[in-house]
Amino acid sequence: MIYADNAATTKMSGAAINAMLNCMEETWGNPSSLYGLGQRAKDALEEARERLAACIGASPKEITFTSGGSEADNQAIRSAAALGARKGKRHIVSTAFEHHAVLHALKKLESEGFEVELLPVGKLGTVTAQQVAEAIREDTALVTIMYANNEIGSVLPISQIGAVCRARGVLFHTDAVQAAGHLSIDVNAQSIDLLSLSAHKFHGPKGVGVLYARQGIPLSSLIEGGAQERGKRAGTENVPAIVGMAAALEEACAHMDENTAKVSALRDRLIAGLSQIPYASLNGDPVNRLPGNVSFCFEGVEGESLLLLLDDRGICASSGSACTSGSLDPSHVLLSIGRPHEVAHGSLRLSLCDENTEADVEAILNAVPEIVGYLRGISPLWKDKLSGKREFVL
Amino acid sequence: MIYADNAATTKMSGAAINAMLNCMEETWGNPSSLYGLGQRAKDALEEARERLAACIGASPKEITFTSGGSEADNQAIRSAAALGARKGKRHIVSTAFEHHAVLHALKKLESEGFEVELLPVGKLGTVTAQQVAEAIREDTALVTIMYANNEIGSVLPISQIGAVCRARGVLFHTDAVQAAGHLSIDVNAQSIDLLSLSAHKFHGPKGVGVLYARQGIPLSSLIEGGAQERGKRAGTENVPAIVGMAAALEEACAHMDENTAKVSALRDRLIAGLSQIPYASLNGDPVNRLPGNVSFCFEGVEGESLLLLLDDRGICASSGSACTSGSLDPSHVLLSIGRPHEVAHGSLRLSLCDENTEADVEAILNAVPEIVGYLRGISPLWKDKLSGKREFVL
Repeated sequence: MIYADNAATTKMSGAAINAMLNCMEETWGNPSSLYGLGQRAKDALEEARERLAACIGASPKEITFTSGGSEADNQAIRSAAALGARKGKRHIVSTAFEHHAVLHALKKLESEGFEVELLPVGKLGTVTAQQVAEAIREDTALVTIMYANNEIGSVLPISQIGAVCRARGVLFHTDAVQAAGHLSIDVNAQSIDLLSLSAHKFHGPKGVGVLYARQGIPLSSLIEGGAQERGKRAGTENVPAIVGMAAALEEACAHMDENTAKVSALRDRLIAGLSQIPYASLNGDPVNRLPGNVSFCFEGVEGESLLLLLDDRGICASSGSACTSGSLDPSHVLLSIGRPHEVAHGSLRLSLCDENTEADVEAILNAVPEIVGYLRGISPLWKDKLSGKREFVL
Repeated sequence: MIYADNAATTKMSGAAINAMLNCMEETWGNPSSLYGLGQRAKDALEEARERLAACIGASPKEITFTSGGSEADNQAIRSAAALGARKGKRHIVSTAFEHHAVLHALKKLESEGFEVELLPVGKLGTVTAQQVAEAIREDTALVTIMYANNEIGSVLPISQIGAVCRARGVLFHTDAVQAAGHLSIDVNAQSIDLLSLSAHKFHGPKGVGVLYARQGIPLSSLIEGGAQERGKRAGTENVPAIVGMAAALEEACAHMDENTAKVSALRDRLIAGLSQIPYASLNGDPVNRLPGNVSFCFEGVEGESLLLLLDDRGICASSGSACTSGSLDPSHVLLSIGRPHEVAHGSLRLSLCDENTEADVEAILNAVPEIVGYLRGISPLWKDKLSGKREFVL
């Protein structure tokens, strides 16, 4: 099997599994309990908090553990909105190609009277700090812009955007779910006020994530109850998963440079190879790009058929985000960069990690052109087009 | 170590760890992905849903996976409240001794204009179906009453309460976090519309729970985003934890009768033994009681000191719920059954499971009277009292 869908989820690292298993077998007490077993769980929890904080340049007390990236996004956005509303600020700036965890949280706020402005992301799929500066108003409560796009891999100029927000006194949240473990994060240097990450995107466990909130920013609870996480997130802390997440993020950060070099070389070979396919176009920013992301649209191809035929050859890939699979709507991300509906349906996302090999790349480069050719071959319109018999108009 | 705090959290069963580990190593795909690895994860997810549903007499599509009991409680209550509000119903009936996940969610609804009526639970810590019947009004949106109390172990007459609610056309939610795996649950026979459970209370993993919602009851999302869980709970499903939870609940249900017999015999010996201590009183319903729960108040004793001295002897116990440890306020549960503040501070909860032994019981019965005597001995007031020198008035 060639796994090339690391943006959907990753295989847990041995270090993460071992840390989690050890915790489940040895440090399984409730961290709120007073006796030794509970206090050892508490110590493991707080040590993990310190290690995670260190990975993003934060202080431990700025880290709140959540059940994943979606919860962290929702809590960040609702907290900033509540804070803004108290000051009469009900304007929020975001982009058209955020993850649905952000877009749907914003949609809900719209129904509660907030005004949401989604910046266009252009053909390359990015926004500039200038766009953000122009969008900020006196009543802007929050700017929420992702660090890197999950489908097309564009890496956004987060540091510049953060600087603009800081200068204008506006809270800045970034959904760093695709960035964490792959791109360096320094919440202070990058002027980030709120940040979300999800462990299963960097070889950690599913069901756990982090919400970073700069000291002094009060969080609203999504889940009311016990006083865990300083009263900001009720429910017994998922200590084994948190410890597994810390192990995974530390490992990813420790090897980031070498992994980036290796993975981006594989990525670039894939991009070069797949670009040879007629009527293929790369999605996303070709330069500022996640090390592992390869995203293409192949005209005249139905993405789902492409995926199934790749699966037949043991290649795991996706068309857009896993979170919207099963939906017949074309990806909002591909539409946001101007792909027409019918082209957006023919998308392929390959997302690599450091476990992928040159042999994987060769196998993918053998399979994709053949399958694209086959699928176009069974479409009479495309058969004609590719043999030059008629001009094709999309 | 003698672990007698199973109401706080439990040690994962071997079956649960193995199921989870196997899933982390083999079935780790994203269940929303189309390729084989993803579909196998999807199959594992749906099989776990069927097995969990079967344990409570529900249909699989009535099961929504959450990050735990607190999230399930919050989502159940907010969903029922939203549904009621649409019909102009803003009255909610509950009890004074619910878990904080319920009470704090209700508090938030009060701030949004709902009227919450908390039924008194009497000296034994229970409510009758008659009390519920009398509290229900035309504008009652929800009755939310726990199946069994987490601190004092009372088991409530859920079937009768459910029948009353059903007859009056009012939604009935029960927080079954302490009941699941220990008491039989049949959502149809018991007329339960919404039910919450948490895996780590029955030897499953932390960070995962279930919200059961009867077919036709629309759930409101707490976490917006992807279309997972039929659009009711965004975020990549925590398949390994869900599979671990299913293994744990099936195991608990399969052995429920024998475990109940074994554990309640240990419980009864503890209750009989600890009742011999002067000025000790059992908390909670002596008859309708969780098989593993032993809860006492010892007058003249500071609960935290008792716990620390028990810990010195390797005995893990708690005073109230783990979720409120660290708080200096006396337990709202003990206050709700009429214990005075100073007595509530001298509480001890021992919660047993089938791994506890008769030797554990003997060790506890040796330790507690000695420690209680010691702690009273260093209190001059109590020294006098116990030697009969003066009448003591609380």
